[in-house]
Amino acid sequence: MKIAIIGTGRIGRVHIKNISTAVSELEIKIVADPFIDKEGEDYVKEFGIPVVTKDVDSIFADPEIAAVLICSSTDTHYDYIIKSAAAGKHIFCEKPVDHDVKRVKKALEVVKQSGVKMQIGFNRRFDHNHRGVYEAVRKGQIGNPHILKITSRDPAPPTIEYVKKSGGIFYDMMIHDFDMIRFLAGCEATEVYTNGAVLIDSAIGKENDVDTALVTLTFENGAIGVIDNSRQAVYGYDQRIEVFGSKGAALDENDIPNTVTVMGENGAVSGTAYKIMWDRYTQSFIAEMKSFADAVKNNKDPEVTDKDGLYPVLMAAAAKKSLEERRPVKLSEVE
Amino acid sequence: MKIAIIGTGRIGRVHIKNISTAVSELEIKIVADPFIDKEGEDYVKEFGIPVVTKDVDSIFADPEIAAVLICSSTDTHYDYIIKSAAAGKHIFCEKPVDHDVKRVKKALEVVKQSGVKMQIGFNRRFDHNHRGVYEAVRKGQIGNPHILKITSRDPAPPTIEYVKKSGGIFYDMMIHDFDMIRFLAGCEATEVYTNGAVLIDSAIGKENDVDTALVTLTFENGAIGVIDNSRQAVYGYDQRIEVFGSKGAALDENDIPNTVTVMGENGAVSGTAYKIMWDRYTQSFIAEMKSFADAVKNNKDPEVTDKDGLYPVLMAAAAKKSLEERRPVKLSEVE
Amino acid sequence: MKIAIIGTGRIGRVHIKNISTAVSELEIKIVADPFIDKEGEDYVKEFGIPVVTKDVDSIFADPEIAAVLICSSTDTHYDYIIKSAAAGKHIFCEKPVDHDVKRVKKALEVVKQSGVKMQIGFNRRFDHNHRGVYEAVRKGQIGNPHILKITSRDPAPPTIEYVKKSGGIFYDMMIHDFDMIRFLAGCEATEVYTNGAVLIDSAIGKENDVDTALVTLTFENGAIGVIDNSRQAVYGYDQRIEVFGSKGAALDENDIPNTVTVMGENGAVSGTAYKIMWDRYTQSFIAEMKSFADAVKNNKDPEVTDKDGLYPVLMAAAAKKSLEERRPVKLSEVE
Amino acid sequence: MKIAIIGTGRIGRVHIKNISTAVSELEIKIVADPFIDKEGEDYVKEFGIPVVTKDVDSIFADPEIAAVLICSSTDTHYDYIIKSAAAGKHIFCEKPVDHDVKRVKKALEVVKQSGVKMQIGFNRRFDHNHRGVYEAVRKGQIGNPHILKITSRDPAPPTIEYVKKSGGIFYDMMIHDFDMIRFLAGCEATEVYTNGAVLIDSAIGKENDVDTALVTLTFENGAIGVIDNSRQAVYGYDQRIEVFGSKGAALDENDIPNTVTVMGENGAVSGTAYKIMWDRYTQSFIAEMKSFADAVKNNKDPEVTDKDGLYPVLMAAAAKKSLEERRPVKLSEVE
Repeated sequence: MKIAIIGTGRIGRVHIKNISTAVSELEIKIVADPFIDKEGEDYVKEFGIPVVTKDVDSIFADPEIAAVLICSSTDTHYDYIIKSAAAGKHIFCEKPVDHDVKRVKKALEVVKQSGVKMQIGFNRRFDHNHRGVYEAVRKGQIGNPHILKITSRDPAPPTIEYVKKSGGIFYDMMIHDFDMIRFLAGCEATEVYTNGAVLIDSAIGKENDVDTALVTLTFENGAIGVIDNSRQAVYGYDQRIEVFGSKGAALDENDIPNTVTVMGENGAVSGTAYKIMWDRYTQSFIAEMKSFADAVKNNKDPEVTDKDGLYPVLMAAAAKKSLEERRPVKLSEVE
Repeated sequence: MKIAIIGTGRIGRVHIKNISTAVSELEIKIVADPFIDKEGEDYVKEFGIPVVTKDVDSIFADPEIAAVLICSSTDTHYDYIIKSAAAGKHIFCEKPVDHDVKRVKKALEVVKQSGVKMQIGFNRRFDHNHRGVYEAVRKGQIGNPHILKITSRDPAPPTIEYVKKSGGIFYDMMIHDFDMIRFLAGCEATEVYTNGAVLIDSAIGKENDVDTALVTLTFENGAIGVIDNSRQAVYGYDQRIEVFGSKGAALDENDIPNTVTVMGENGAVSGTAYKIMWDRYTQSFIAEMKSFADAVKNNKDPEVTDKDGLYPVLMAAAAKKSLEERRPVKLSEVE
Repeated sequence: MKIAIIGTGRIGRVHIKNISTAVSELEIKIVADPFIDKEGEDYVKEFGIPVVTKDVDSIFADPEIAAVLICSSTDTHYDYIIKSAAAGKHIFCEKPVDHDVKRVKKALEVVKQSGVKMQIGFNRRFDHNHRGVYEAVRKGQIGNPHILKITSRDPAPPTIEYVKKSGGIFYDMMIHDFDMIRFLAGCEATEVYTNGAVLIDSAIGKENDVDTALVTLTFENGAIGVIDNSRQAVYGYDQRIEVFGSKGAALDENDIPNTVTVMGENGAVSGTAYKIMWDRYTQSFIAEMKSFADAVKNNKDPEVTDKDGLYPVLMAAAAKKSLEERRPVKLSEVE
Repeated sequence: MKIAIIGTGRIGRVHIKNISTAVSELEIKIVADPFIDKEGEDYVKEFGIPVVTKDVDSIFADPEIAAVLICSSTDTHYDYIIKSAAAGKHIFCEKPVDHDVKRVKKALEVVKQSGVKMQIGFNRRFDHNHRGVYEAVRKGQIGNPHILKITSRDPAPPTIEYVKKSGGIFYDMMIHDFDMIRFLAGCEATEVYTNGAVLIDSAIGKENDVDTALVTLTFENGAIGVIDNSRQAVYGYDQRIEVFGSKGAALDENDIPNTVTVMGENGAVSGTAYKIMWDRYTQSFIAEMKSFADAVKNNKDPEVTDKDGLYPVLMAAAAKKSLEERRPVKLSEVE
């Protein structure tokens, strides 16, 4: 199955590398990026990809291309979705679909009408640890979920340039956690309340953003949840989830680079967490691509689908509004 | 140093046993309980305590008694504090001092005027694990605290009779966590928001109480916090805390009855947590008594003192109000 | 049930304290020690024990005494066993019974003839962790045992004065592990091979002893085992056991003073092990006394009995001979 | 750099897959196997390898081939090493070089004379966990090594056909551990003593082999060691190492498929170990190939070299002799 990739930023390159080396079900024919430079071209060519171009539209015109991976900046997602759907290409779109709820809904509607498949890039659903917790919950091992908790902290804050374009912590970082907590709960959140602070970098505050946030959620099934985000955990990429219910609890620990412990007079020292996101989530990116290939090839529903493109964005919108208005906000208010 | 104990309920008996067997600094002369029965008397006598009586007032009249442990029901605390202070007896009072903020403040004022010492029964401050986290924070090992998290779940819900008299989950159960989170933060909370649900026993809901609660807190130093409570964790007494800050994080795990793991075809099985609170916190109750004895004998400030009697009650009041009014509530609103 | 204790050294004091504060089934009437000094007397009196004497024989003459705890030096065990048995007193004797196999056998024979009960002080059988592994094995959770492993390391080497009188690492230190590995295997060892070295203190070598030893064992049921001892683990009292079998493995980890982990830029730091044996094994000493009280009061066989007094001594003798002769030695050679 | 691979059995295929997808430094030009069938050819072709042949000698005649990977059965290693060396091809040879010490020495000598590089396939040296322990030891974090322990158990015994050709547990399975323990010790073993048993499959015993073995070792630097092997750990591939020394201990735990724990009424259940060796050691096989490529390209000494081809074989020979003669055997006896 031949595919095209739009965008050669960090996430685009990860997919190029993973598909080329570990996802034999997909074959990259075209990589398109209007802003690609020499260094980017070299990166792509190393993987033996036939076409590297600045002309994104050539993708939609190529009858051999079965699917498009949209890995460009968030503001371009909407257009590329519309064009891909119009051209009858299946779509893999990085998160979030868009920051504007109306545009997200419109895009989802167009995709639906066109009949192509669209999968959203919530790779963490395919992570071995988080998937293990999810499966324990779905198998009923913990009974009915009562409390859901996600700890999600990045090793270091992004640059202010990045923050300015990111849409803020809720759209850029917590969006992953919003998707994960819905995935775990097995239903939608109805209300959120946000507690946020600027504790790491005052420049982030000047952008009307926060670097530390804790969002409380209420779910349709009565469960309650909490997500905490920090832009800076000096010990690494801290990603832990816990679902507590009527029959027990399922939780995961961080992946660590090795299992070594050194015991000495001053205690036992072991590793903490990966310092780089790509090292931490390598396996999940590969698994999500295999899942996408499987959906397209075998005409299945993608494992991450239209609702999953919409609800995390609604949650981000409600969380942001809650922070601004200092009150709990219902998702119905932002829909 | 001779002391008297008021109350022979669960907590009273724990102190009787611990002091008799493990706290040689204190000598129990009188145990008083207006409602004591034959079985209660037998329990007390087994420890060789000279006087067992229904006459609580005899304590205040006995010049040999240096300190009084108030372990009776919460509604009696106020009176016994006033009487103890008037008689010049040092006071150890179980939590909470009272459910009424005004009465708490009055009691604290009377104690202050009298010059006696008063320690509040927040035993968890003396727990080896929680104390370890506290010390890591105080030594600066995690830098400035940014996010504080407490998981606090009981193995099984109390009887409805107990719930009716308990003052509700915030005064009865989360009060411990309110104290602990202030202790860890090193400053007071300014605002709380409560997310609560009835997921375990609908009879608890009929008492206008919840059995599952998640409270978000804002602290004076800008840190944010969250406490989650459940009345029923089938795997045992689940008590974990975590403080995350600018230089790292300190966290503890549950105590387990033994460190055994059995590995078989279906996984590795190990213990979870103690099923009974008294087994879990034995060491902390002994340590709190040694601390109280030390404060009285050596004329030191108790490690848990007047503010600690007041603030957790304010936090409980605010948390309850937040649940009722579905909005964040400032502590200043309930003071 | 009134008892007497012979010896006020380290282990005698531990039993005095534990029985006085935590074993209500036993009442210490007499503590006897021919070499007791003022400081020792004060220690004993603090626990309210009626009689403190240098006259050990007064114990055997006292009709009120039901049982004797022999906590004096190893060379005196034999005589006190003979005298206790002759006086019809039940016996708790610290390990090892004696370094001489013939004397051990003679003592066991005399006890058998007299009809009194005798329990040997292998306290680790009552340790919550090791007991948990034992129970998993006995319940068949790991199937037939194939490989048994004991890691047993002390925090610091004893003084050379102590080493001289100790009988060497096999009689003094590994004797506990010899008993434990038999207990876990559920049968006797038939052959041992010793690999030993002097790596910590050359003065230990001058006493014809080793400070690092690894003993391989063959058991009657075909299982094989290994015990490693070191006189110095700088991170504390390292005590771990593992039984591997046809259906899986059961193993325990060290007890640690608390469960705290501090995560920072340089890793996750947690506790290692207790630095003091008495802190590590407190609970086991209490449990062994309760077990002894139960056996005597309820006329049961003690949980540690005659064979248990003999076989670890045989194993120590064989291990020492193996080290000297650099060859595997059968237990039948030393019996 | 173009290379050839001899052999398309399990290990050959692992290298073909890893090099093709993850080791861009190497390019496989020829895969040769005299016994290759259609299915094998299909496997190889899937990776786009230009030449698949039954003619091994064509490799040595091809001037483009810089290095040869010898992945055929052990009995063919010697010849292929000689031919590769004669043809001036660098060599990567799977373990063991040969079962015959003389032939190993001869092969090493020929390689030395020819000037080509040869790396032996001890992939576990490149495992992230074991490497972490090794580095802690080399950095001096545990001081001087005193005791080295390796637990090494396979999930299931091989077929009897395999056992017959394997050379026995010491040459086939423990050979990895012999290399690892030397690697950790930083010096050679001088003497071994073997304790072995047939506890899993009596058919293995009929082949004069054992399925459970425990080998004690003495090292040049005075340290002592122990390796235990079992052909069947039902909970998976159990691979743990520990080095204890004058300043502490370094140890690793098994890799597990995920970090999930499910806590319920009957305990906390988590994963144990990988059930398949290739899943467990994937990363190490890739790292060893990158290391080999680095050595050849940059004219460095390989990380695993001539001595490493010889000593594990000597240890296996001594261990087997010790089992047969039931006595400790010096390595000098088998050299």
